[in-house]
Amino acid sequence: MKTLAFSAATMALAFAPTVPAFAETPNEIVEGAPAGDWTEIPADDILIMTLAPDAAGKPREVVVQLFPAPWSSAWTHNIRALAKAHWWDGMSVYRSVDNWVVQWGEGDVETPKALPETMKLTSPEGYSLAWHKGLVDTLWSASGRRTAELRAKPRVASGSHFADPYAPAFGYVNGLPVASDLVTQGDISRPAAIWPVHCYASVGVARGLTPDAGNGAELYTVIGHAPRQLDRNIAVVGKIIAGIEHLSILPRGTGDAGVYETLAERTPIVSIRMAGELSESERPRFRVMNTDSDSFARWVEAKANRKDAFYSIPVGGADVCNLPVPVKPVTG
Amino acid sequence: MKTLAFSAATMALAFAPTVPAFAETPNEIVEGAPAGDWTEIPADDILIMTLAPDAAGKPREVVVQLFPAPWSSAWTHNIRALAKAHWWDGMSVYRSVDNWVVQWGEGDVETPKALPETMKLTSPEGYSLAWHKGLVDTLWSASGRRTAELRAKPRVASGSHFADPYAPAFGYVNGLPVASDLVTQGDISRPAAIWPVHCYASVGVARGLTPDAGNGAELYTVIGHAPRQLDRNIAVVGKIIAGIEHLSILPRGTGDAGVYETLAERTPIVSIRMAGELSESERPRFRVMNTDSDSFARWVEAKANRKDAFYSIPVGGADVCNLPVPVKPVTG
Repeated sequence: MKTLAFSAATMALAFAPTVPAFAETPNEIVEGAPAGDWTEIPADDILIMTLAPDAAGKPREVVVQLFPAPWSSAWTHNIRALAKAHWWDGMSVYRSVDNWVVQWGEGDVETPKALPETMKLTSPEGYSLAWHKGLVDTLWSASGRRTAELRAKPRVASGSHFADPYAPAFGYVNGLPVASDLVTQGDISRPAAIWPVHCYASVGVARGLTPDAGNGAELYTVIGHAPRQLDRNIAVVGKIIAGIEHLSILPRGTGDAGVYETLAERTPIVSIRMAGELSESERPRFRVMNTDSDSFARWVEAKANRKDAFYSIPVGGADVCNLPVPVKPVTG
Repeated sequence: MKTLAFSAATMALAFAPTVPAFAETPNEIVEGAPAGDWTEIPADDILIMTLAPDAAGKPREVVVQLFPAPWSSAWTHNIRALAKAHWWDGMSVYRSVDNWVVQWGEGDVETPKALPETMKLTSPEGYSLAWHKGLVDTLWSASGRRTAELRAKPRVASGSHFADPYAPAFGYVNGLPVASDLVTQGDISRPAAIWPVHCYASVGVARGLTPDAGNGAELYTVIGHAPRQLDRNIAVVGKIIAGIEHLSILPRGTGDAGVYETLAERTPIVSIRMAGELSESERPRFRVMNTDSDSFARWVEAKANRKDAFYSIPVGGADVCNLPVPVKPVTG
């Protein structure tokens, strides 16, 4: 029989091919994207969670990008207030469920810690926004057309399809994924409602049964296939842009709903801070690709139609959670 | 302000509500499904990987359900031959990439171990099958119609939508997910090609660059959002039905393509066996829900339209990877 060579070198090629004879890869587009196709994420949208060092003594830092107002603004107001009050310091990551979520905050205690006085009330009405211009950077319909106001019968430029079983259209705000309905008037369609969605690494607000909407003090992140059934049923406040592996590799909890049964299993939170509170040297900085840039349009096409050396059959489509907008650290 | 109670008890409710005043939950349908709506997975389709005990000395067992022939049959033939030869014993889990895959087998060695003589050649042609009746148990079109031969304009029974940006239809064989194209003749549509898909916990065959199709000796599982762009570009041989958390929580590798940089970081494989080789007392047994049963149809509807106490807005759709067919251990 044919002998199949298998080595770390071929694996590296297999999963990140860079063979020039083939079409450009998504990674090559990211690497080649000009500076003008990126925007720095404002410090006021960046939350840094520092966990206790791991068993080997290595530091663990998780960086969350928050939605800008007016998205989920009651909850992000509260999250900023809690971070500024150092409210989470000394609390823990207390829950992990495989292919579902990892959750942190105060958890189950007899005497809850007092909340900052500036906390806002929240309600399920805040899960989605009424459409207005300027609310998103980009919106894609099922046909792949990229515009904020969609013709009812958009041209299909490339044959790619972006049908979403969960919503008629999806888009991005500061690189964070959102979805919308579509209402058609004449030959123009536009969204009536628009909402943040649950993808891998999305950060949401834990809550009790409806109509409780949570206050933002207990947060979770998605560590599996996108649980889109939660969209519009729970507040999404942002996305982890660095360090999610410090949460996704935590042992799964064996108590009810994946809560750790012993305090020893929890991971201590040293601190949660807004980036602006850190000194400039400590402050992590990131750029996100502009979703209305040519680089992003090419990246989406390449993601939906892989033609590089590893791929034989371009799949011809993608879902919003398989199109995580490229983010890179600011260097130098 | 309103004080929001938050406890492990409300969390348990929040994530597995069982309030009878509301619509039944997917879990309730699974619990209530009669014995006739389940089929035991044949021992010849079950592969058991035993890893070295974890740091606390706890045993770690990963159970894979393989596709039955003719699905990916050259690779599953090889996998059965490798397991029967005890070929993997003493090898390791050597690669982990967040939101991507965990991979195991021999990895990168100077002198590869001899393969069993009965190994079959593989080729990319085996990634999908030509359609014939009896190949799948169930097939769903974008409209949600459940049949193996689809009318071109199927009735939409429930308003749920199952559009898939990656394929015109999806279905199941022994509970394992597949997708297909659709060719229409008159008012009947049927698939021309049909193929296994990449969902969370799917098991695939690592390979080098195309046209290498891998032989089945190096395997991976998906530990993140479904990378459907790999469908038809790599062999999918089955799915992990128990113990995936032993793989998904492994530290991510820091070498090229997520390969562990040191041997000490690898997780030793004690053994990989076909279930039939184990004694009856050691042999894990599982039942999978029949996807042509009424229970499954109700479960899909409930998954796509959550109306239980936690949910306010039923999303009205689902994607194949968010519809993992229920599996339960055989007890008693």
